Amino acid sequence: MNWHDIFATRMSRMKASEIRELLKLLDQPDIISFAGGIPDPALFPVAAFQEAMTDALSPAKSSSALQYSVSEGYGPLRDWIVDQMASLGVPCTRDNVLITSGSQQALDYLGKLMLSPGDTALVAWPTYMGALGAFNAYEPNYDRLSPGGNRSAEDYAQAAADKGGRVKFAYASVDFANPTGETLNLRQRENILALADELDIAVIEDSAYQSLRYDGEAIPPMLALEIARKGSIEECRTLYCGSFSKTLAPGLRVGWVCGAASVISQLVLMKQAADLHSATLNQIAINTVARNVFEDHTAMLRRTYGARRDAMLAELEKHMPEGVSWNRPEGGMFVWLTLPKHMDGGDLLRASLETQRVAFVPGQAFFADRSGANTLRLAFSLAQDAQIEEGMKRLGEAIRAMM
Amino acid sequence: MNWHDIFATRMSRMKASEIRELLKLLDQPDIISFAGGIPDPALFPVAAFQEAMTDALSPAKSSSALQYSVSEGYGPLRDWIVDQMASLGVPCTRDNVLITSGSQQALDYLGKLMLSPGDTALVAWPTYMGALGAFNAYEPNYDRLSPGGNRSAEDYAQAAADKGGRVKFAYASVDFANPTGETLNLRQRENILALADELDIAVIEDSAYQSLRYDGEAIPPMLALEIARKGSIEECRTLYCGSFSKTLAPGLRVGWVCGAASVISQLVLMKQAADLHSATLNQIAINTVARNVFEDHTAMLRRTYGARRDAMLAELEKHMPEGVSWNRPEGGMFVWLTLPKHMDGGDLLRASLETQRVAFVPGQAFFADRSGANTLRLAFSLAQDAQIEEGMKRLGEAIRAMM
Repeated sequence: MNWHDIFATRMSRMKASEIRELLKLLDQPDIISFAGGIPDPALFPVAAFQEAMTDALSPAKSSSALQYSVSEGYGPLRDWIVDQMASLGVPCTRDNVLITSGSQQALDYLGKLMLSPGDTALVAWPTYMGALGAFNAYEPNYDRLSPGGNRSAEDYAQAAADKGGRVKFAYASVDFANPTGETLNLRQRENILALADELDIAVIEDSAYQSLRYDGEAIPPMLALEIARKGSIEECRTLYCGSFSKTLAPGLRVGWVCGAASVISQLVLMKQAADLHSATLNQIAINTVARNVFEDHTAMLRRTYGARRDAMLAELEKHMPEGVSWNRPEGGMFVWLTLPKHMDGGDLLRASLETQRVAFVPGQAFFADRSGANTLRLAFSLAQDAQIEEGMKRLGEAIRAMM
Repeated sequence: MNWHDIFATRMSRMKASEIRELLKLLDQPDIISFAGGIPDPALFPVAAFQEAMTDALSPAKSSSALQYSVSEGYGPLRDWIVDQMASLGVPCTRDNVLITSGSQQALDYLGKLMLSPGDTALVAWPTYMGALGAFNAYEPNYDRLSPGGNRSAEDYAQAAADKGGRVKFAYASVDFANPTGETLNLRQRENILALADELDIAVIEDSAYQSLRYDGEAIPPMLALEIARKGSIEECRTLYCGSFSKTLAPGLRVGWVCGAASVISQLVLMKQAADLHSATLNQIAINTVARNVFEDHTAMLRRTYGARRDAMLAELEKHMPEGVSWNRPEGGMFVWLTLPKHMDGGDLLRASLETQRVAFVPGQAFFADRSGANTLRLAFSLAQDAQIEEGMKRLGEAIRAMM
């Protein structure tokens, strides 16, 4: 049987994630890895989850916790999110919130909602690879989102029309983005909103790392800025994607989209057709844990991850040779490192694994146009101080050896 | 902002499920409802889930249970499913199994895998409405799958070509289907496989109710029949969708697809892009519960639901007027009732809710061509004997009043 004649055209765009393939190779005890951008499992609020699950499976509650439930999501959890969004400057109601199976699913649904083949999505160079993966299924073209505001709306519109579609949305990870760790400043956020207004497109605001700010002043989400300007979330084009994966635990797969009710209602129909609803039990447990420990737990995460970031920055200072630069993220899990122009992150990884047993993710995979060969992503979320010290020393050696 | 210019063309196919909208109206205590085709929550294996969750969240295991995990699914659960499939005549390995978030997600992914806009999917008239909902997102045409074998492959192929695509798959719910409760016999299964061979298309075998057989002899899944003929699952075109929703609990959203490894690997890429993976904790808990209680628990479900089916059939016999007919399903949750030709199930529901306070689902919603106005679906899974007795009496009254 020739399956390739059966597969839809979109399947030609579905490729294995290089990072995920890479991570499989790194599961060896003697490698010091800064590759996996995942939360430290030693920090999960396990006791809170135990208590929440025991409660959800108690006689009075188990019947509904184990049963089918509505596609919109668990009401009390949507209410908690409404309060959380209000604290970020986003007044809204339950009808503005859909629970998704992680914010990855939100990205998939938003691509599915808006992209017909040949349409254009605006994304940063580099950007979150998982967003490109999710959108690829809907066969878009990509154009480079420039938050500096130095390209006109007409220019974007014309480029999209030349490719046979129209611009549908701008996607931006706003705080401590994966992979760069960078944060869009107020001006950049306003620029994106202004561009979206001119182009009459949506904005997808990926806020997965929002709660993990270690210093500097919080900047309002684009959705908050847009509401401030337009008066109501119902008038807004920004769709905010949130997640519990970096704050409570990723293994339960609970995230959300917040936006205009007219869009949320379409996403509810989509979810109903695609998987009925996110797991009932998980939504109930996340609601309990969020209400019981979210503030204290995220404060602890900020102290712990913040110290790891500080350690990584200090060790980079000590061990990196001349010609290597890196940024100073105000939160999140990543430092972005730039090698001298002639060096290749993939080559460095191969050499580094062989001679120094240290791992990271070459940056090229995050660029929609496959540029950025001389960049790399270092995750500090999983590393203890001693590993960071030893790891940065080894990385410095590996870079020196290739210079 | 005009969102309709932003939405993808597929959104014109996404409509609210009539059944789900209907069910919202039925949440009133004095209505006797045979509408919701869902498991009885009083029968959930709550103690087994409590034990499994306590174990999964124990100190040794919580780190991985709450963490990200692989898109393929939890290995030990895939192994349990391999054993289960072997017992159904489907020898396979882990590589033939993908864990999905319920079998609804499997249907969505299989539509996404195969359907380009304008392609044709073959489905029964009537069929599971959720399958149509999932496939609609990929903008197919539908043609009527005739398991009687009385339409030629050429005819199907020509009809699809006339609509600008090709036939991609035949979808069939094989055992005690939703909505009809009917089971495809051996000959019908062989006919579908033969047609699929001739058309060189895939077969989606929806086996959500497979474990709920109350009497009659089990018929091998189409995947087992195909393996018997072709020698190996890798040579087969059948993709089997299984679910724990009807056997253990729907609220955890765990199901699976079993098929050729070359197809499963594509679905893994799709899942990675769409939601990374199904909830880790849920897969671990389902694995524990399945290993501890699956056999005994499903035996209890068969006794309980089987007795409810018997009660419904006995009461129908007593209370239905001349001119009304119904089938005798060998398992599952549904009896399918046919009214005299001139009667309309939707009209009957409105009248019945008003005068008799009894609910069911009009059959028309399950027909891709909107025929079947004189049919209705009665679910017996949630009803106690006394409700069945009173409910069938009232339904008989309502039908008589409209005759």
